[in-house]
Amino acid sequence: MKDVQEMTEKWVYLFSEGNRDMRNLLGGKGANLAEMTNAGIPVPPGFTITTEACNAYFKGGKQFPKGMWEQVLGALKAIEKQTDKRLGDPSNPLLVSCRSGARVSMPGMMDTVLNIGLNPTVLEGFAKLTGNERTAWDAYRRLIQMFGNIVKGMDRHAFEAILDKYKEKTGGGKDTDLTVDMLKDLVRDFKALYEKELGETFPDEPHDQIKQAIAAVFESWFGAPATAYRNAEGLPHDWGTAVNVQTMVFGNMGEGSGTGVAFTRNPANGERVVWGEYLLNAQGEDVVAGIRTPQPISRLADDMPEIYKEFLEICERLELHYRDTQDVEFTIERGKLWMLQTRTGKRTAFAAVKIAVDMVREKLIKKNEALLRVNPNQINQFLHPRFDPVAVQKAKAEGRLLAQGLNASPGAATGIAIFDADRAEERGESGEAIILVRPETNPEDVHGMVLAQGILTQKGGMTSHAAVVARGWGKPCIAGCEEIDIDLDSRQLTVNGQVIKEGDQISLNGTTGEMFAGEIATVEASFEKEHDLVTLLGWADEIRQLGVWTNSDTPDDAARARAFGAEGIGLCRTEHMFFGEERRPIVVKMIMSDNPDERIELLNQLLPFQREDFEEIFRKMDGLPVIIRLIDPPMHEFLPPLEELLVTINQLELELKNKPSSTKAKELKSALEEQKRVLKVVRSMWEVNPMMGLRGCRAGIMYQGLTEMQTRAIFEAACNVTKEGIETHPEIMIPLISHVNELKLERSKLEKVAKEVMAESGEEVDYKFGTMIEIPRAAITAEKVAKYADFFSFGTNDLTQMTYGVSRDDAEGKFLRQYVGLGILEANPFEVLDREGVGVLMRMAVEKGRSAKPDLEIGGCGEHFGEPNSIEFSHIIGLNYVSCSPFRVPIARLAAAQAALRHKYGRKS
Amino acid sequence: MKDVQEMTEKWVYLFSEGNRDMRNLLGGKGANLAEMTNAGIPVPPGFTITTEACNAYFKGGKQFPKGMWEQVLGALKAIEKQTDKRLGDPSNPLLVSCRSGARVSMPGMMDTVLNIGLNPTVLEGFAKLTGNERTAWDAYRRLIQMFGNIVKGMDRHAFEAILDKYKEKTGGGKDTDLTVDMLKDLVRDFKALYEKELGETFPDEPHDQIKQAIAAVFESWFGAPATAYRNAEGLPHDWGTAVNVQTMVFGNMGEGSGTGVAFTRNPANGERVVWGEYLLNAQGEDVVAGIRTPQPISRLADDMPEIYKEFLEICERLELHYRDTQDVEFTIERGKLWMLQTRTGKRTAFAAVKIAVDMVREKLIKKNEALLRVNPNQINQFLHPRFDPVAVQKAKAEGRLLAQGLNASPGAATGIAIFDADRAEERGESGEAIILVRPETNPEDVHGMVLAQGILTQKGGMTSHAAVVARGWGKPCIAGCEEIDIDLDSRQLTVNGQVIKEGDQISLNGTTGEMFAGEIATVEASFEKEHDLVTLLGWADEIRQLGVWTNSDTPDDAARARAFGAEGIGLCRTEHMFFGEERRPIVVKMIMSDNPDERIELLNQLLPFQREDFEEIFRKMDGLPVIIRLIDPPMHEFLPPLEELLVTINQLELELKNKPSSTKAKELKSALEEQKRVLKVVRSMWEVNPMMGLRGCRAGIMYQGLTEMQTRAIFEAACNVTKEGIETHPEIMIPLISHVNELKLERSKLEKVAKEVMAESGEEVDYKFGTMIEIPRAAITAEKVAKYADFFSFGTNDLTQMTYGVSRDDAEGKFLRQYVGLGILEANPFEVLDREGVGVLMRMAVEKGRSAKPDLEIGGCGEHFGEPNSIEFSHIIGLNYVSCSPFRVPIARLAAAQAALRHKYGRKS
Repeated sequence: MKDVQEMTEKWVYLFSEGNRDMRNLLGGKGANLAEMTNAGIPVPPGFTITTEACNAYFKGGKQFPKGMWEQVLGALKAIEKQTDKRLGDPSNPLLVSCRSGARVSMPGMMDTVLNIGLNPTVLEGFAKLTGNERTAWDAYRRLIQMFGNIVKGMDRHAFEAILDKYKEKTGGGKDTDLTVDMLKDLVRDFKALYEKELGETFPDEPHDQIKQAIAAVFESWFGAPATAYRNAEGLPHDWGTAVNVQTMVFGNMGEGSGTGVAFTRNPANGERVVWGEYLLNAQGEDVVAGIRTPQPISRLADDMPEIYKEFLEICERLELHYRDTQDVEFTIERGKLWMLQTRTGKRTAFAAVKIAVDMVREKLIKKNEALLRVNPNQINQFLHPRFDPVAVQKAKAEGRLLAQGLNASPGAATGIAIFDADRAEERGESGEAIILVRPETNPEDVHGMVLAQGILTQKGGMTSHAAVVARGWGKPCIAGCEEIDIDLDSRQLTVNGQVIKEGDQISLNGTTGEMFAGEIATVEASFEKEHDLVTLLGWADEIRQLGVWTNSDTPDDAARARAFGAEGIGLCRTEHMFFGEERRPIVVKMIMSDNPDERIELLNQLLPFQREDFEEIFRKMDGLPVIIRLIDPPMHEFLPPLEELLVTINQLELELKNKPSSTKAKELKSALEEQKRVLKVVRSMWEVNPMMGLRGCRAGIMYQGLTEMQTRAIFEAACNVTKEGIETHPEIMIPLISHVNELKLERSKLEKVAKEVMAESGEEVDYKFGTMIEIPRAAITAEKVAKYADFFSFGTNDLTQMTYGVSRDDAEGKFLRQYVGLGILEANPFEVLDREGVGVLMRMAVEKGRSAKPDLEIGGCGEHFGEPNSIEFSHIIGLNYVSCSPFRVPIARLAAAQAALRHKYGRKS
Repeated sequence: MKDVQEMTEKWVYLFSEGNRDMRNLLGGKGANLAEMTNAGIPVPPGFTITTEACNAYFKGGKQFPKGMWEQVLGALKAIEKQTDKRLGDPSNPLLVSCRSGARVSMPGMMDTVLNIGLNPTVLEGFAKLTGNERTAWDAYRRLIQMFGNIVKGMDRHAFEAILDKYKEKTGGGKDTDLTVDMLKDLVRDFKALYEKELGETFPDEPHDQIKQAIAAVFESWFGAPATAYRNAEGLPHDWGTAVNVQTMVFGNMGEGSGTGVAFTRNPANGERVVWGEYLLNAQGEDVVAGIRTPQPISRLADDMPEIYKEFLEICERLELHYRDTQDVEFTIERGKLWMLQTRTGKRTAFAAVKIAVDMVREKLIKKNEALLRVNPNQINQFLHPRFDPVAVQKAKAEGRLLAQGLNASPGAATGIAIFDADRAEERGESGEAIILVRPETNPEDVHGMVLAQGILTQKGGMTSHAAVVARGWGKPCIAGCEEIDIDLDSRQLTVNGQVIKEGDQISLNGTTGEMFAGEIATVEASFEKEHDLVTLLGWADEIRQLGVWTNSDTPDDAARARAFGAEGIGLCRTEHMFFGEERRPIVVKMIMSDNPDERIELLNQLLPFQREDFEEIFRKMDGLPVIIRLIDPPMHEFLPPLEELLVTINQLELELKNKPSSTKAKELKSALEEQKRVLKVVRSMWEVNPMMGLRGCRAGIMYQGLTEMQTRAIFEAACNVTKEGIETHPEIMIPLISHVNELKLERSKLEKVAKEVMAESGEEVDYKFGTMIEIPRAAITAEKVAKYADFFSFGTNDLTQMTYGVSRDDAEGKFLRQYVGLGILEANPFEVLDREGVGVLMRMAVEKGRSAKPDLEIGGCGEHFGEPNSIEFSHIIGLNYVSCSPFRVPIARLAAAQAALRHKYGRKS
């Protein structure tokens, strides 16, 4: 009685009995096959033995649970009925495959056993059916080989050794060169090996083969590879694996047969046309092997019009069922079409956008789904020039790929190599396409970088100066390209023995990090013409709750960002307004002066320049807010570096000792005095840790008149453009606040200037004063800081540095990359926002800040805010906007929409 | 009927009707006078008009509330009865004072009006009674002057001008030179001025004088000074002021009269003997003025034996009543002793400790009260040699005080000035007393600092290297003494035109920051002989919940700290174990090597030295825990500075160009090559912000074998001393953790070494592995970090730097001091722990850490943990211990006890 009861438990499901929600019971593969079957797709019939059967197998001391084998036999009968084939019947043999399939895909699990059901008798019938004796014998020798190796655990090298022996006898030495006779001998030798090794004969009875294969799949669950894989991934050992037994179909059964692969839409450009290729009278591996050239799928319309029609209908049905483009494999066996596999089709960025938008138009999916179908980072590809793929292929074939660096800023560029900024400026201005090559860059190289088409540096990481500036401008950049060796004196670089001289053509692919010798044809980008993308981003704008602003320092950047959809400037840095031919000498004089009145006078000389800068930016951002950060870096950055001064002074002193002429001596002495004067100032300003020294608001507080001048320039500019009819909303951002009293003091000082200027001009400007939150203490005391701030803006670069206690400049190459390599860090926290550490402070700042001032405007302007994961976090904690470099604006728009679809906005911790 | 009812409200309290709890109604002064009166102390009788009367005065349109004046008259009658004097009675006149008195003392309120009740008639009787006509007229002219100025608001300069006119007529030109006749003329002129200005005659009727004085005191509540004061302090305006009317007594009424001041115990040494001085037939101001030399109080036993006895009894009663040493003023009027004031007596550190301990022995106070009677910082005075005060007085008189710097480390020292560490070491070893004078110090000066008696630096703040090291060793140090100008080449300093050469004697008072020329006699300190202090600290130990450990790097420090009561070492730094004659060359070689095997070999050479260091420390700390911090600073600190190398290389290159002999050239070339090799390494290791670069655990992770060697040395030492019978509890502290995975990796690596060593030696050591919490992220993620830490130790120096985004080295002189000056910061956050910012992170770390591991040992070892305010915070958040430099250990013991008496331990936020 007990047996009968246990038999009532269901261990085996026909494909027609399952669906995709039964993944835990049937495994991923089994559930998918069931889903397809029930969607009316012609899938070769089969059944799945459940994961519970596997667990019961082990629980019962490696015995099939009671009733399971009987259910397998029943399922086999059902398949025979569906296929009109029979196991062991030479006239119409049923062959099956046997595969494992756990809940999640587990590479390292047992492989597939194919061709189960073959034996010498069946083989003859099979040969007749396919009209190909060779294929039949080859299939049989494969079965023995797989069975011996996979099911019985025999060493696969022993089989290979025998195979190699026969291959040597052929002319070509390949599998396909073996003759039928050779294959017959091979089968004999394989069977002999099998008997010798295992002490038993090869099981030629089909049911026996199936039984052993099923047990072997069960056993594989606790095999070394699968166990190790689960341990590494932290997966439970009690999930068990399912076993899928499926009818084999053959595309090589003569003229009415064939096989192919296809996408339901073009994966390159997204066109709504089935795209793929096929071979007649061939098996799947023949398409992949490339021995015969496959035909484009459209030709099938001529070869098999009915099948083609059915295939197109199935593709349509698959898209309707799965609601996405599918990548399918199919086989036609003697006039019958079978679908072997369907999965979501991989696609290019361009195809992804077009397909998503088209499917909405076709009412196949909703806008919200379309938005989730595109990876925001892929959008990058729309915004930058790219190399013609064919040209790249050619260049690689010609050996012109010279080196691989970090893909620091996407896009492609080709031009002549130039090794210093001045020369780059000079030749760039004369209209030549320039690639600036430097060991690394710093703010003094910026004038050359502006004119370069691309930037290549030997050192520095993804957040080096070159990388950050280049990304900001959307210029391609390869950083940290350590294979190249730059000789600045002789103006050339050496890379793997090849020399590139100044003026030689090179090409950079900033998207991949590849550097080439010579020119490569590029394709220009045009955002406005990417209609589907513009449509998709329009939908993103409808859904997102985060504003998307931009970090732009110049009118050109501002205009570009606005075209990309930026809704304001979240960070306009002002440091560059102190550089430049006319300005820098004034700045240096100002710093060197110890007379406060003279300083103020010099600052006043700078004012008109900066006012003009601001006016132009305000015009470009007519109607939108502009957050301007007051000067942030330490003032000593405007003076020559200590090291340089020391060397100069030393040389001057030694020249003086060399008894020069009296005129010369006088000159030298005067130069020496001047250099020493500068040295004294530089020394007095020198800092051990400049990042945490006299900068930001601290400099504003200590240098009388500096931020007042900036504020005056901003408000004079705002009043002037207001008179022109421009609508402007300046927001003054005071950097590096660690104590509320710093803000209180600076704000009151600057607010006074603002009011003065407005009174002078008679214009009213809609302005705000706020602060960056970039020091941990400002976040911790945000409820106090908020009392004197109209807005907060997270500066996550500095906030990450201080929260982590890591100086970005020092850490990247010295330990941060190594940390990621060692698995200490999952990601570089300067690339992906550290939610666990920095994020806690951000959340604290948002909650405390809004507790004091519920309508406090809070955004972020660090590098992170163009990165989708960080944008998602910004949405979760309820920022008002993210601000990123112009070229990240479209990415941020989509990422913000996806965040809105996935998470509640402003969730409390 | 209404009037009668209102009369029932009580507006006036005799002193005998109040007590000290009635401060709100009677004001502070009134409540205290009432308290004394009721304690049976002979206080000149008087009464207080309530603060409510003041409020009613304003509410009623500046009218005395109904019934108040009648109550005043009644109170006056009562006084007349008590004193047997009468207002306006020339034979025995009652004179009174009239004073304001609010709830809290308010400087800027109305002053006192004295001598109320005098008029020409009374004056004559008063003159007879005192036998001094001059005094009587002088008192009268003062009354008119005060009344005119304070009650009537007349310009005091007008009175002064008249007074000056008369003073010019005398020989001496002082008040006391005025004759009776002159005073009579003066009174006439004052009254004429009064009439002219106010259009009324001066009120000679005593009740009239009182009435107007009371109204004037009420009015003063809303006078400009008092209103401004309340606004500034945020005090409410509706408190009102009380008015105290009190009998005046006179110590100058002939032979049976006198006046004096006294302490109930000696305020210098705490002896239980009344200590003070008096003058017969004199008024209070005569004692202060110094015209006559007062007598020691003991002489009163001869002059007035009865009065003296009564006075001693009163002192006793005052101590019993107030339960503390009192500072009293008294007057004897015609054989009657009156106490004018009593308040808590100020005292020296030595007196404070003795009095507190004595009073417990006398059962006057409890131990807990005794503990609160001593300011922990005062204890410093017990621990350091001090200058003989008389010798200091003499030195100042001789003009030997040369400069004033920061009092960076307390104590006094005298010795010869030496300007470099090597010379200091050399001469110090030969037994000379040395004062090391440097522009500032760094770790390379330590060998010289060890042998110096005191340290003087021109630059650097309270937390400069010199200051920190000196405090650690208890050596006097003056830092940031910017008046001195050091010329290292000529080995001398110039200060205010005076030159101190090498070998000249100088003296430093590190407690005050004063620097002297020449020798000054010192008094040595001996903690063990300070029996009262040892007793008091014993009581502190009974009460405190915080452990007190010490930051000690050497066996000597450890022994000293243990004598001071340290219960463990909370921070044993190991950097110094890499310096030293024999060790440094090995370290440099190790850093320069690029061969990992060679590095390990070199590290092994260091091991025996460090093992010995640890053994000695473990012996000294037998039975107590020792927390050893693995190497923390960046490795490039062991190489020569970049600047130095550049100069050397430049000189070598130019010497080579000068066509030297071929032998010389060879030498130079080889030296140049070596220097360039070093330069290359230094350059590769150079960091923009070394504080946040490759140091702490980061260096441990990146430099294979470094921390393994340290760990091996520690455990070999621990096993060795265990064999000697020493009980040791090493705790290995891994610095600069920002991510738990750093700790996880380091810990597993080092734990392996620990187990190996113990297995090798066969000893079991009770050890812990833990981490510093000194990076904000470690605090924020403390619940994760705690999983791999047996203990936390707050490194608040770095934690403050990073939380504030302030580099201590750079900030002190460049903006931090200025910030304190500008009021942006209340205190330097490196001196007093910033509870509002850094404290929030500490609390977070404690709560999160203990949530993951409830028995987690948590302490702190930053500079802050020897500072009472920060120790109090440590108690509040529930640290297990604080660790401070040896000389702060006694201070910390007392501060911890006070914290325990004032706050609940481990209060949740």
